[in-house]
Amino acid sequence: MTKKYQRYVQLLQKVADLEAVQAILGWDQEVNMPVAGASSRARQLATVAGLGHELSTSEELGEVLETLHAHRDQLTEGEQRNIDLSRKDYLRQRRYTRDFVERRSRICSEAYEKWLKGREDNDSTEYLKVLEEIVKLKREEAEILGYKAHPYDALIDLFEPDMTVAELDPLFAEVRKKLVGFVAKIRERPQVESDFMRQSFPIDDQWDFSLLLLKGMGYDFNSGRQDLSPHPFTTTFGPGDIRVTTRSEEKNFANICWSSIHEGGHALYEQGLLPEQYGLPLGKAVSLAIHESQSRLWENNVGRGKKYWEYWYLRLQEHFPRQLARISLDQFYHAINRIEPNFIRTEADELHYHFHILIRYEIEKQLIEGSIETAQLPGIWASRYREYLGVEVPDARRGILQDIHWAYGSFGYFPTYSLGSFYAAQFFQQAVKELPELERELAAGSTKALLDWLRDQVHRHGQHYSASDLCKKITGEKLNFQYFMDYAEKKYGEIYFKSL
Amino acid sequence: MTKKYQRYVQLLQKVADLEAVQAILGWDQEVNMPVAGASSRARQLATVAGLGHELSTSEELGEVLETLHAHRDQLTEGEQRNIDLSRKDYLRQRRYTRDFVERRSRICSEAYEKWLKGREDNDSTEYLKVLEEIVKLKREEAEILGYKAHPYDALIDLFEPDMTVAELDPLFAEVRKKLVGFVAKIRERPQVESDFMRQSFPIDDQWDFSLLLLKGMGYDFNSGRQDLSPHPFTTTFGPGDIRVTTRSEEKNFANICWSSIHEGGHALYEQGLLPEQYGLPLGKAVSLAIHESQSRLWENNVGRGKKYWEYWYLRLQEHFPRQLARISLDQFYHAINRIEPNFIRTEADELHYHFHILIRYEIEKQLIEGSIETAQLPGIWASRYREYLGVEVPDARRGILQDIHWAYGSFGYFPTYSLGSFYAAQFFQQAVKELPELERELAAGSTKALLDWLRDQVHRHGQHYSASDLCKKITGEKLNFQYFMDYAEKKYGEIYFKSL
Repeated sequence: MTKKYQRYVQLLQKVADLEAVQAILGWDQEVNMPVAGASSRARQLATVAGLGHELSTSEELGEVLETLHAHRDQLTEGEQRNIDLSRKDYLRQRRYTRDFVERRSRICSEAYEKWLKGREDNDSTEYLKVLEEIVKLKREEAEILGYKAHPYDALIDLFEPDMTVAELDPLFAEVRKKLVGFVAKIRERPQVESDFMRQSFPIDDQWDFSLLLLKGMGYDFNSGRQDLSPHPFTTTFGPGDIRVTTRSEEKNFANICWSSIHEGGHALYEQGLLPEQYGLPLGKAVSLAIHESQSRLWENNVGRGKKYWEYWYLRLQEHFPRQLARISLDQFYHAINRIEPNFIRTEADELHYHFHILIRYEIEKQLIEGSIETAQLPGIWASRYREYLGVEVPDARRGILQDIHWAYGSFGYFPTYSLGSFYAAQFFQQAVKELPELERELAAGSTKALLDWLRDQVHRHGQHYSASDLCKKITGEKLNFQYFMDYAEKKYGEIYFKSL
Repeated sequence: MTKKYQRYVQLLQKVADLEAVQAILGWDQEVNMPVAGASSRARQLATVAGLGHELSTSEELGEVLETLHAHRDQLTEGEQRNIDLSRKDYLRQRRYTRDFVERRSRICSEAYEKWLKGREDNDSTEYLKVLEEIVKLKREEAEILGYKAHPYDALIDLFEPDMTVAELDPLFAEVRKKLVGFVAKIRERPQVESDFMRQSFPIDDQWDFSLLLLKGMGYDFNSGRQDLSPHPFTTTFGPGDIRVTTRSEEKNFANICWSSIHEGGHALYEQGLLPEQYGLPLGKAVSLAIHESQSRLWENNVGRGKKYWEYWYLRLQEHFPRQLARISLDQFYHAINRIEPNFIRTEADELHYHFHILIRYEIEKQLIEGSIETAQLPGIWASRYREYLGVEVPDARRGILQDIHWAYGSFGYFPTYSLGSFYAAQFFQQAVKELPELERELAAGSTKALLDWLRDQVHRHGQHYSASDLCKKITGEKLNFQYFMDYAEKKYGEIYFKSL
């Protein structure tokens, strides 16, 4: 079996090479590509994706996986896990017909065009028409993939293996019950002051400071780099080349700061995967939610925490004395944790954020089960924003057209953002318990103990454990929303109910 | 045949996509990649190259080419040309056995390592041993490819189709006869002053000026960009994305200036190819020598010309008043055309340059025909540098280890550099004849008429004509070294025999 297993590794790593190549082409497109390069780049991406699909669904790979699966008792536990997950993925890929893949690609391209045009014209009419096609297609996909209880389960599984409506429904019911109420109470309190965050902060100094933050987290610049792009992202070109992008705005210092920390969190996860498992499940992140747990733990639990800024705020003041010399650490800490409703998901504070996801989760589920129609969406969108956030959606661009996900055909992706935050709260609480010095170290500018703990608890395992098993292994229990509520009530209780 | 031809286009364009992908991976490696990314990048390049080789030697492509070739009378003239050249390339690719390709790749990797190590240690012993392997391999390759008169012909043909020893021997005999004598006379004359070129020129201002030069040439920044890399190069990611790199050195302003112009010349050629012929011979450059003719025409005939600097020198002085305000245009013009022997090919002036190539050409030819041995190379190298350039080679690093080409297995590449200069002189002479306003336009900062002429005469044809036919079409005669001599004697006669 050793030879067969080696062949399996070879085949999977070739697939991984082509995935990395697509990542490089995509990164260059966002970061460097001149405008006229777009159509060639689209060709190249399509060609590489096509070859990748051929390799990942080849007869040979299927035969190798079946043989290894039939003799799995001769493999180590880790090898077995690799084979099981690769086989699941292979069988799933093989379920798609060529006709379906081509239709999906065509409809999504059209939807993307309509989405762009709709944003330009601030009019969702045409987009909603093609979205109806996409919903039909996603229902068809759910049937192709198969599910036990709810068709949406099949789609969630593409991003978050084993997660289901049966688990998400009670979770978001808790969000509705507990978080909506808590935020309503905050909003009755006097608001914190944050105008000073909107002063002019020179872009170059912002950039330098963001690099310091990344270095401070333990991000390895020998195995990565930071660049600018309109939408920040993390991308992996292989074990020694994991890059982040960020964005900066002169009058909004917060943008670069938490973009860099967030992407840095993603990147630390990728930099902590085992290089020898390159291309195999044990060398890949567990799921989108666990990935997001890493970015959000750094962004929020660490990076919007008081202890973290006890160290970094002095450095920040040194970089921007004119802007911040008279602003106290407390004032700064309150400003970066200001709770305020907004129409735009990506600009939401860390509490309101989950209302944006709640709305999308409810809509996705109902669209897929067929209990609502795309034509009703503008009305539903407006009424739920009114109900959960208490805001009137002003127009299509700041309403349903704000997200690209549905135009890409990504249904089942949004819930992973909230799951990420909830896992983050639960993991961080555990880290605080296991590392009694953690808060003091953060206040002294050291994140090493935390990173070592994350490496050991999360990163090095790749997909050895499912998300749910990983959570149990680390914290002793499955995902529990109460940890997030505890975190929110403690932190914002101090900010909004004691300090002011 | 229309459908078959369309299939041919599809297949070739897929191959071109994978070539573009390799170019992007290579560019990123030079320009952006963090150090730890090297081993993943090597994997990815190998995977894409392997897939590209499979596609470009596929049975299907062979069948399509044979069918189209058998019915070539049903194709247009341009289509016939595409099929003929693609078929030649296909049949050549198919001659290589897998064993040979793998051996070649292994030996060249080893040679590259030995070359790097040799440079580090300033010792060519180990490199020369593996070079012996490479020479054997190249002789084997010549036998695989076949040739009529001289085995070296088969290798030259890989870079410069249809060029042979029978043509190069008399050409380089002329170089030896005419150019060596002329340069010897220059060296008896008083030297021009050029110390001011070694002042400190701030890097950022150099960069800005180099962008102005590129814009001034007509390089389209919507279809490209400039970046920094240790060794400047031009790379094509498809019509619409043709990038150049350059290098800068604070105390050597000339570096960025003529690197940018040189690469700009290459890039203008690529930007002038027909996008609708993407991936097909009619959408590709004729040969390395014709490519080099474009870069050198801009670098030397234009970019080291008096007329060009009548316009640009004022702008240069504005950028660097402290350094250049007291230096006259004539002084500057003389300094940038200083003739002086040197051990290093890439630092040679435009006359001595060809002695470096002459030496390499003679050595390559003799190694391949077996009339000298690699063990003799240090002695031969030193004695020819003494003979042609009058310099004593100080060490291995500044001797045989200065070029990477042989370590890559590139035999037959060097002559194209000289051919490029000679074509450039002949083409430029013709442009001057056909565009009576050209010199006045250059002096007024306009290169549009010249670029239009090159687009029309050279760029848009792709490989429609062979290098030799193209030269005849443009100038009415085949490559004639006398044009280069005329150019050299006129220009350097004025600089070294009249002015001083």
